[in-house]
Amino acid sequence: MVHSIKLPIRAVGLSPGYIPPEEDEPLNHNISISIIEYSETDYLEKDQVSIKQCLDRLDTPSMTWIIVNGVSDTATVAYLGKQFKIHPLALEDIMNTGQRAKLDTYDNQVFIISRFLFHNEQTNTLSDEQVSIVFGPNYLICFLERDKDVFAPIKVRLRKPSSRFRKQGSDYLAYAILDVIVDCYLIVIERVDFDLDHLEEELVRSPKPQTLQKIRHAKRQMISLRKNIWPMRDVINRFQHLESNLVTANTQVYLRDVYDHTIQTIDMIEGFRDVVSGMVDVYLSNINIRMNEIMKVLTIVSTIFVPLTFITGIYGMNFDYMPELHYHWAYFTVLSLMALIAAGMVYSFYRRKWI
Amino acid sequence: MVHSIKLPIRAVGLSPGYIPPEEDEPLNHNISISIIEYSETDYLEKDQVSIKQCLDRLDTPSMTWIIVNGVSDTATVAYLGKQFKIHPLALEDIMNTGQRAKLDTYDNQVFIISRFLFHNEQTNTLSDEQVSIVFGPNYLICFLERDKDVFAPIKVRLRKPSSRFRKQGSDYLAYAILDVIVDCYLIVIERVDFDLDHLEEELVRSPKPQTLQKIRHAKRQMISLRKNIWPMRDVINRFQHLESNLVTANTQVYLRDVYDHTIQTIDMIEGFRDVVSGMVDVYLSNINIRMNEIMKVLTIVSTIFVPLTFITGIYGMNFDYMPELHYHWAYFTVLSLMALIAAGMVYSFYRRKWI
Amino acid sequence: MVHSIKLPIRAVGLSPGYIPPEEDEPLNHNISISIIEYSETDYLEKDQVSIKQCLDRLDTPSMTWIIVNGVSDTATVAYLGKQFKIHPLALEDIMNTGQRAKLDTYDNQVFIISRFLFHNEQTNTLSDEQVSIVFGPNYLICFLERDKDVFAPIKVRLRKPSSRFRKQGSDYLAYAILDVIVDCYLIVIERVDFDLDHLEEELVRSPKPQTLQKIRHAKRQMISLRKNIWPMRDVINRFQHLESNLVTANTQVYLRDVYDHTIQTIDMIEGFRDVVSGMVDVYLSNINIRMNEIMKVLTIVSTIFVPLTFITGIYGMNFDYMPELHYHWAYFTVLSLMALIAAGMVYSFYRRKWI
Amino acid sequence: MVHSIKLPIRAVGLSPGYIPPEEDEPLNHNISISIIEYSETDYLEKDQVSIKQCLDRLDTPSMTWIIVNGVSDTATVAYLGKQFKIHPLALEDIMNTGQRAKLDTYDNQVFIISRFLFHNEQTNTLSDEQVSIVFGPNYLICFLERDKDVFAPIKVRLRKPSSRFRKQGSDYLAYAILDVIVDCYLIVIERVDFDLDHLEEELVRSPKPQTLQKIRHAKRQMISLRKNIWPMRDVINRFQHLESNLVTANTQVYLRDVYDHTIQTIDMIEGFRDVVSGMVDVYLSNINIRMNEIMKVLTIVSTIFVPLTFITGIYGMNFDYMPELHYHWAYFTVLSLMALIAAGMVYSFYRRKWI
Amino acid sequence: MVHSIKLPIRAVGLSPGYIPPEEDEPLNHNISISIIEYSETDYLEKDQVSIKQCLDRLDTPSMTWIIVNGVSDTATVAYLGKQFKIHPLALEDIMNTGQRAKLDTYDNQVFIISRFLFHNEQTNTLSDEQVSIVFGPNYLICFLERDKDVFAPIKVRLRKPSSRFRKQGSDYLAYAILDVIVDCYLIVIERVDFDLDHLEEELVRSPKPQTLQKIRHAKRQMISLRKNIWPMRDVINRFQHLESNLVTANTQVYLRDVYDHTIQTIDMIEGFRDVVSGMVDVYLSNINIRMNEIMKVLTIVSTIFVPLTFITGIYGMNFDYMPELHYHWAYFTVLSLMALIAAGMVYSFYRRKWI
Repeated sequence: MVHSIKLPIRAVGLSPGYIPPEEDEPLNHNISISIIEYSETDYLEKDQVSIKQCLDRLDTPSMTWIIVNGVSDTATVAYLGKQFKIHPLALEDIMNTGQRAKLDTYDNQVFIISRFLFHNEQTNTLSDEQVSIVFGPNYLICFLERDKDVFAPIKVRLRKPSSRFRKQGSDYLAYAILDVIVDCYLIVIERVDFDLDHLEEELVRSPKPQTLQKIRHAKRQMISLRKNIWPMRDVINRFQHLESNLVTANTQVYLRDVYDHTIQTIDMIEGFRDVVSGMVDVYLSNINIRMNEIMKVLTIVSTIFVPLTFITGIYGMNFDYMPELHYHWAYFTVLSLMALIAAGMVYSFYRRKWI
Repeated sequence: MVHSIKLPIRAVGLSPGYIPPEEDEPLNHNISISIIEYSETDYLEKDQVSIKQCLDRLDTPSMTWIIVNGVSDTATVAYLGKQFKIHPLALEDIMNTGQRAKLDTYDNQVFIISRFLFHNEQTNTLSDEQVSIVFGPNYLICFLERDKDVFAPIKVRLRKPSSRFRKQGSDYLAYAILDVIVDCYLIVIERVDFDLDHLEEELVRSPKPQTLQKIRHAKRQMISLRKNIWPMRDVINRFQHLESNLVTANTQVYLRDVYDHTIQTIDMIEGFRDVVSGMVDVYLSNINIRMNEIMKVLTIVSTIFVPLTFITGIYGMNFDYMPELHYHWAYFTVLSLMALIAAGMVYSFYRRKWI
Repeated sequence: MVHSIKLPIRAVGLSPGYIPPEEDEPLNHNISISIIEYSETDYLEKDQVSIKQCLDRLDTPSMTWIIVNGVSDTATVAYLGKQFKIHPLALEDIMNTGQRAKLDTYDNQVFIISRFLFHNEQTNTLSDEQVSIVFGPNYLICFLERDKDVFAPIKVRLRKPSSRFRKQGSDYLAYAILDVIVDCYLIVIERVDFDLDHLEEELVRSPKPQTLQKIRHAKRQMISLRKNIWPMRDVINRFQHLESNLVTANTQVYLRDVYDHTIQTIDMIEGFRDVVSGMVDVYLSNINIRMNEIMKVLTIVSTIFVPLTFITGIYGMNFDYMPELHYHWAYFTVLSLMALIAAGMVYSFYRRKWI
Repeated sequence: MVHSIKLPIRAVGLSPGYIPPEEDEPLNHNISISIIEYSETDYLEKDQVSIKQCLDRLDTPSMTWIIVNGVSDTATVAYLGKQFKIHPLALEDIMNTGQRAKLDTYDNQVFIISRFLFHNEQTNTLSDEQVSIVFGPNYLICFLERDKDVFAPIKVRLRKPSSRFRKQGSDYLAYAILDVIVDCYLIVIERVDFDLDHLEEELVRSPKPQTLQKIRHAKRQMISLRKNIWPMRDVINRFQHLESNLVTANTQVYLRDVYDHTIQTIDMIEGFRDVVSGMVDVYLSNINIRMNEIMKVLTIVSTIFVPLTFITGIYGMNFDYMPELHYHWAYFTVLSLMALIAAGMVYSFYRRKWI
Repeated sequence: MVHSIKLPIRAVGLSPGYIPPEEDEPLNHNISISIIEYSETDYLEKDQVSIKQCLDRLDTPSMTWIIVNGVSDTATVAYLGKQFKIHPLALEDIMNTGQRAKLDTYDNQVFIISRFLFHNEQTNTLSDEQVSIVFGPNYLICFLERDKDVFAPIKVRLRKPSSRFRKQGSDYLAYAILDVIVDCYLIVIERVDFDLDHLEEELVRSPKPQTLQKIRHAKRQMISLRKNIWPMRDVINRFQHLESNLVTANTQVYLRDVYDHTIQTIDMIEGFRDVVSGMVDVYLSNINIRMNEIMKVLTIVSTIFVPLTFITGIYGMNFDYMPELHYHWAYFTVLSLMALIAAGMVYSFYRRKWI
């Protein structure tokens, strides 16, 4: 469905940074906030914290990672944004999900919008969500559309006391999040690859009208993948070359790696596109081949029987003087003749490889 | 209609800055001018003002926003242009609507042509209009083709005494106008998206010859959208990076946001283009599939009845000696035989999945 | 015709700057030279002047504009070129018309080749001619292929004593010439637009085999337009940014305007290309739809009458024992039965929307 | 098979540089390591060495070339990487084969991933393998997926005591390896060229449904070739312009040569792509031409016999008063008439060039 | 034939600069060397000189132009290369013909590979050859694949004592050679243009299955032209902007001219490509139109006669009670009825414009 494109429309001309009031969800819908605080020596993880608790933690020298699950409670997010000194425009983008991936810098803050992709098993479609990241010297806040445990592997690594990770700053954490997101692209790609293989087999073995629908669905998926992943490439590239004291040289080396993975993903998608666009050709040629089959049958049957029927017509005429009619073996001679003609036809079709 | 492209032709070789005399509208057609003046403390809004009143206001230190509705009264616009010291080339572009979006700088004046898009409900087509903006240190003049209240939301914000807006200069006002225009793109896009969904359903359920017309209409719309919006991207990008004391760093941050929205719009249009171009394939394959259907019916009917008719032909011949004719049950035997042949045919079609 | 491309071949390996001897035109074919001289105060216009007169005028401080109509008299043009100190390579390009638009600078001289387009009403084709311009500090020489009064509007402006034009230098005159040429593009574009509209109507209402020829003709025109106008864009862009004391800042502002017009023209051509390439699809689908129509008629007629004919065949058989033949109302019963079958068929076609 | 794309997925979110445990191969699978040490005077070559022996050799002033065959024994490779001070990210890429070609620099080490292509005669497909190269001041380690003697020619040159090669550093050895790999591309290209020629002949002489499959297979090969070779171009280009004391000016000259070969390979692949995409057109038009053939036969037979059968039908009617029936020569007259009609039909088909 | 691409494969991994032993030509095949020496005052031209003689001439202050015809005698070329101090990589490229056009600089030597194109009248194909140029301060050596007098026009100009040419250095000679080569492109283009015109006429008047083969042949030629000429553009561009004391400003002006010609050639090829790719559409639509013709004939004949045959069938039935049979004028009434039906059908076809 084309409609699946989420349009980030705000009422025209409202002041930028305006937060649209929630309509389709209850206002008392709670945002759930988790906080993780870590330093080389300590590690603290707490779910369901209040905004107040978050703010207290921000002032500590240790790294503070705040995860906000759900961005639909506009008022809370707005309040949060104000407390964390997030620029109104960034805040607007966080709440109006469906943004293109991008990276903006505000004074001493980096703001990243990234697109997270996953394969929705129930609907058998690709879903995409927005993951917004704001980080400053010793804190990182990330906003998720829904409460999913996508960052579990990062937490596992942080929990290990000896982890190199704990010594790194907020830029490394941002890298780790992007790395997880890009790794998920590869999983999605693998799934798409698997589906395409199936589709291809169906196409060759038993193409149906629905097959074309499936091909178009696949095409649409490619468009969606491109739309989400291409901007990510730019984001990671800009992050890597960001001239800011917030990004260390060490992190830049790691970002180069994520960048390579993104390029690889894009390469594969481009390959898929070629494959899919070739499928339409195969489908159309299959239709043509079937038409040929049908025409052949029609032609063979008509070409054999129409002349024979003509012969029977001749001897069905009622002329007074038709000498052949009175010969004793005429009937069987004519039958044999017709058998011969039919055999000749069949042989000629055989030679043309129609049979 | 290709013809809907407005050609900004002036008579060949006339001096640049020449204003073509109006032909299809009465000369006494009045331009309506509105003026809005605001500063941190004051706000003044007045419709139907005279040029003289405008000029008086330009000298005040507060921001002056002049809105000229209608650019067809050439003489008045030319007079206005001269009074406001607008460069002749800019003035020419203002009057010859149908220009590509662009940004030019003249000494201490920035001149922007932008394209405003809206969906015309009566004709069910996209319409585009030219919005020309000229701004200097503390004034902004904008020229509209027709009297439409597109800037209402900006006025609402300006009327609030506490508005941040009131403290901003003419560059911020220019940004606000562009922001409204780009937001309107998204509304148009949503409408196009909706239409494409309908078209797609029609295409799959009941394609008619008109469907192809509709697809081509959609294709044409995409071309028109691209043609209007791509140059806007450049304009906003150049505005954002303009090296001029007329543009503050604060406004540049906001322009980045508008720029992102434009990119997003373009992304969607590109996606639509892919969707639309895929539709032609589907339509053609649908025609082919229908042809197949028709051929199948023809082939089935012919293949069953042509051989049977041949058999009836045999026993309709008038040979003297045809022993079968005289057997008592011959007629019913032949009838049964024909029923058997027909059944065999039907079974063979069933196995080929033609039935 | 592909052949309409003029190949600027000189004999291989001849020294550059070589002027090919005229073959298909008489040698005594006269070049006609006009001269216009103007300053703020004076204006002089003279047709059919001699080369000697031209040279005399070049030394005066006032602007001298020399128009050479016809470049086929090689010897004269070569002599002229030598007198005016035009570089041999430039001179070669002037005489071998069919060059790509380009801009070269030689010491204290700017050399521009531009392509002039017009719609030839007699042959209903686009024609293109080469307009070569050489200008230095206070003179401009332009070479036309044929004697056409394309620059009439410029002359009209120059004749007015009060004209701003008279105060400008040779760069402004070059701008004015390019402006006229680009304005003519728009006229050509309008004509093409008109033709495409007609073609489109023909395509939808009554496509014929010739229609495809017309579409291809239109496609070829687009290629030709692109080929001529794209290089003009570069030429004007380079002219605009030329680092030379021959080009004033004022002229550059005006050139920006011409540049915008060229871009607009190119935009439209790109739009036309999309329209034209869509036409082939429509044409092919029209052929397919007609085929469908034909097949439908065949299928309906065959499917109704073939079974009925089979029934008549049955009762035309000559078996001794066919009890139905002897029932009194059998004939009319069979007739009714056949009418029923036919009605059933018709209804089934109606339900499939074939009728 | 799309699936042939190897997806370098590591478990999402694991720490970068993580080595996935081998699952489908026995853990005691041995990596085989060869070592070659050379200087202007000496040459030493040893297979099946231990890691310990390698490390001892690294400290000597002579060039040390270590070849690791097989990267599936994760633990050993990881240990090796640690001993050779290879960056964890590089090590990860070495083990997760299926990477895009790339070049990264770490402090005093250059890391290159290159793609080696060869034609697998058994499966008649293109296979690709990853060759990873790490080199520092006087050593080069290269990792191969399988034990193949691809570098034999390099060894032959090194063994010659007088070889220029022996005096060169590790950058020249890296060049030599890339040169071998790019030369192999040309062999693959030649093979593809040969296959395409065969395919083309088949296409023109006797196209079958399988031909389309083969065309698609060829198309897929082109995609795969592009995917592997394009990034190599960038790698060699970057290597050539690397600002590092590890790369001498002499080697850069040689790299320019390899670069040219890569460009040439890419040129050929692009040419192949055009050829292959044209094949689909030919195939489809062949199907159409065959359909035409079939239709012609049907039409000729039907058009000749249907009218004749109608005539026999007329004289088969049982009206009491049909005067023709009683003329003596009527039968033969009608037969002659039918022969005439048939002849006329045949002639008309002949004139339309259907026969 | 795809195979016509010459693959410059050397045995994998051999030392660069390696010269492959000639296999298909006798070893005693002689290279023929010509020498031309010229200065402002003197001119010397000698064919069939020995290498020794060449070397003697190199030391003189006058310009020395050595033309080596045939590069298949590897040993001689290698010896020559060594004597003239040509870099081994350049020498390898000279001998392995089939290289892409390129320009490399070695110390005080410029090395250019250019592609020479000509139309082979016997095989009616485009042939391409490699012309390799090496020039230093006062000498230029050029290597041709075969002994052809392509440089005759240059010699003609050099022989004139008054020629400007004689005063120029080796860079101007290199320019002159490239100019000859690019002029030959235009001749080839003219020939291709001529062929395309013929092909187009054939396509419109009497398309045959071979026509598609010809179209594909033309397409292949375009690919080959592009492949050869595009790199030439880069070579000439780089030559023009070469920062080397070997290239004078004067020559650069002339190179600009050659560059323009190359661009023009490329423009034309791009135009041809569009034309050729449109031809496939026309061909396919022609097939479709013919199919339509065939279908129409079948449908008209069937639709007229099938119902009529049905009527004859009715009155051929043998029912006892068929009152119409006994009416005196029934037969003629039925005949008239059938004529009427046929006329109605024909009229309906006429209205549908099928006849």
